[in-house]
Amino acid sequence: MTHGEIEVDYRVRSTPAEIEGRAEALLLEQTVELPRTCLTSAFVREQIVGRLAACRPDGEGAYVVTLAQPERTAGSDPAQLLNVLFGNSSLQPEIELVDVRLPADLAARLGGPRFGTEGLRALTGVRDRAFTATALKPMGLSASELGRLCHAFALGGIDVVKDDHGLADHAFCGFEERVRACLAATASAAETTGRRTLYVPNLIGGPAEVRRQAALARRLGVGAVMVSPMLVGLPFLAELVRDLGMPVLAHPAFAGAQRMSPLALLGRLFPLYGADAVIYPNAGGRFSYSQETCDALVGALRSPGAAIRPVLPVPAGGMKTENVPAVLKRLGPDVMLLVGGSLLSPSAVPLVERCRQFAGAVQHFRHSQ
Amino acid sequence: MTHGEIEVDYRVRSTPAEIEGRAEALLLEQTVELPRTCLTSAFVREQIVGRLAACRPDGEGAYVVTLAQPERTAGSDPAQLLNVLFGNSSLQPEIELVDVRLPADLAARLGGPRFGTEGLRALTGVRDRAFTATALKPMGLSASELGRLCHAFALGGIDVVKDDHGLADHAFCGFEERVRACLAATASAAETTGRRTLYVPNLIGGPAEVRRQAALARRLGVGAVMVSPMLVGLPFLAELVRDLGMPVLAHPAFAGAQRMSPLALLGRLFPLYGADAVIYPNAGGRFSYSQETCDALVGALRSPGAAIRPVLPVPAGGMKTENVPAVLKRLGPDVMLLVGGSLLSPSAVPLVERCRQFAGAVQHFRHSQ
Repeated sequence: MTHGEIEVDYRVRSTPAEIEGRAEALLLEQTVELPRTCLTSAFVREQIVGRLAACRPDGEGAYVVTLAQPERTAGSDPAQLLNVLFGNSSLQPEIELVDVRLPADLAARLGGPRFGTEGLRALTGVRDRAFTATALKPMGLSASELGRLCHAFALGGIDVVKDDHGLADHAFCGFEERVRACLAATASAAETTGRRTLYVPNLIGGPAEVRRQAALARRLGVGAVMVSPMLVGLPFLAELVRDLGMPVLAHPAFAGAQRMSPLALLGRLFPLYGADAVIYPNAGGRFSYSQETCDALVGALRSPGAAIRPVLPVPAGGMKTENVPAVLKRLGPDVMLLVGGSLLSPSAVPLVERCRQFAGAVQHFRHSQ
Repeated sequence: MTHGEIEVDYRVRSTPAEIEGRAEALLLEQTVELPRTCLTSAFVREQIVGRLAACRPDGEGAYVVTLAQPERTAGSDPAQLLNVLFGNSSLQPEIELVDVRLPADLAARLGGPRFGTEGLRALTGVRDRAFTATALKPMGLSASELGRLCHAFALGGIDVVKDDHGLADHAFCGFEERVRACLAATASAAETTGRRTLYVPNLIGGPAEVRRQAALARRLGVGAVMVSPMLVGLPFLAELVRDLGMPVLAHPAFAGAQRMSPLALLGRLFPLYGADAVIYPNAGGRFSYSQETCDALVGALRSPGAAIRPVLPVPAGGMKTENVPAVLKRLGPDVMLLVGGSLLSPSAVPLVERCRQFAGAVQHFRHSQ
C-alpha cells in the first residue's frame, strides 16, 4: 500500500476564535478519537493522525476545513472509508461533508463504476445523443399491468425503462414475474420498432436477497439493474459490483443528507462505490437541489478523477418532454433524461405517442458543438 | 399477511395554507409517486395508497403529519420498509422523520433484537446494576498493544471492553490477531479477578467481509459483537442477526448524516433491525443530543412495543467516572455506561486503578427504587 492521503472538505460553522480548535478536534475525531495528550505511540502520532491541509472562511460564521487523512486509516475497507470521512462527525450538526478526493490507488482498489457512460452506450447502442428513460409505476400494478406499460414505453421508442425504486418483490407483484413480463414486452416491441429498449429492474432487500434478484435477472436476460445505495448500504454496492457484470443505475432514495452535500454523496461516493449512472433530482422539480448543485454534481460524475470511469448523469424528479431542449442545451449529450410521472398523467394523447414525442425530442435535438 | 398499517410521524415545515397539500404530496411520494389523477387501478387507490392519520401544529411554521401506510407496501423487505418510511422524502429538506410505529406482525417478521437487555445480562452475569464498558483505542495500536490495554481494563473490573468503531481489519492491526490478543487478555485477567470481562470486537466492511469476521469471531470464542448499522446498511444488519447467534452492540457512526430524529433512527430502527444494545452520544458530551432527546431515546429502547425485546441503552461520548452517580440516578440500572477517552487521558493514577474506580462507582451505587 502506498502512503497517500485522503483529502476531505468539511464546512464547519464556528467563530474565528474557535475554528482552530474545532478543526483539530475534527481531525482527531475521525481516526484516533482521543486528544493528542493521550497518544503515547509514535506510530499513531506520525502515521495515523492526519493533518489540517487548509482552512478558509466560507461566508459569515463558517469555514471550509480540508483534512488530509493517511490512506492507511481506511485500508481497503469500503465501510471504514465512510468512517474516516464522516463516521462520528456526522453526529455533529455544525459539520457538513462537502467534498472528497482519494488517492488513485485507493480509488482503484474500491473499483468505481465497472461500465460508466461508455459501457451504457455500448450496451444500448445510443451514440452521440442523450439517453431517454422512464419509470414503471405506480407500485400496486400487477406484473402483467407493468408489462403492458413497459410495452407502450418501448413501442414509443424510449431507450431505458426502469422500475420505480419502490417496486420490490411484493406479494402483489413478484420480482421474477415482473422481470419476465417486462423483458417479454421489450422483446415484443422490438419486433415492431427494430430496436430493443433496455429494461432495468430495481434490486432491493438485504444483501442475500439482492444477490438472489441479481442472479435471477442475469439468468432471465436483464442487461442492467437499479440499486438505491443508501437503502442497501454503500459497502454492499462496492461488493456487489465486483461480480455483477452489469451496469448499475443508482437511485437516491434514503440519501437525503442534510449534512453531506449532494456533490459529496451522489457525485463522489456513489460512483466510487460502483454506480455507472446516477439518478438525481433535477433543479426546478419537486425536490430541493439548486441549479448550481446540479451543475456541480454533473461535473463530478463526468470528471471523476484518477482511476474512475466517467458516470452518466440522470436528471429526474419532475422532468417533462417540454423541458428536453433546455436540459439538453445545458447538459449536452452525455446524459440520460428520466421522464416519469408526466408521461403517465391523464391526457387525450395515447401513451405510446407521448413516448414518441419524448424520444423524438431527444433524437432530433441538435447539439451545438 | 395481515392488512395492518405502518404509522409514520414527520415534522413538516409549511404554511397553514399549504400544509394540506404538502401532507397529501408526502403521502403519495412515499408509495405510488404519482398524483391521484394518474391512478387508474382500483387496487392501487384502495390498497396501496395510505391515509393521512393526523396533522397537528408543532410550533411556528411546522406541523407533525402522521401517515398510515398499508403494511403491504413494505412487504417483509427491510430495505423497502426504509423506502416507505423515508425514501424520496429524505430528499426534501422541509421534512424530518420523527417517529415510527409498526404493526406487531411486521415487527416480528423483521425480528428485532435477538437478545436485548436480558440476553446481555444472561451472557455477562451482570444483574441488578448498570453495566460498565470502555473502548479499545486509538486506531494505530498493534494487536498486542490493544491486548495489553484490554488486560488492564479487565483487571480493573470493567464488564465490557469493545473495539473502537474505527478498528477494522487494518494492515497494522489485523482483525484475527486483535481478537486473539483481546480474548487472551480477558482470560488471563479472569484468573486474577475470578470474573471474565466480555470483549466485543467491531465488525466492519462489506457484507461478505462482515460475515467472515463474524464467523472467525465465533470460532475464536467471542460472545458479542459491535456493528455500525449505518455504515454496513440497516437491511444487512437485519440479515446478519438471523443466524449470528450473538448479541449486537450498535454504534451510531455515519448515523447523523440523515434528517431522521435520533428517536426514529437509533431508538426505533436500530432495534427493529436487530441491535441488542445501542450506543448513543449522551447529553453534555462532545455531540449534540439534548437531555430531552436522550431521555426519549432511552424510553424507546426500553419500551419498544409489541414483538420487540427491550434493548440496552449505552450512553457514551465524553462520559466520565465522576458523572456515574448522576447518570445512574437519571437512568437506573438497565444501562451500560461506556467510558472511553477519559480512562486513557494522562494521569498519575494507573489505568487498572482508574478502571476499578469506574467499575466500583457502578457496583456500589444504590439505586433508590
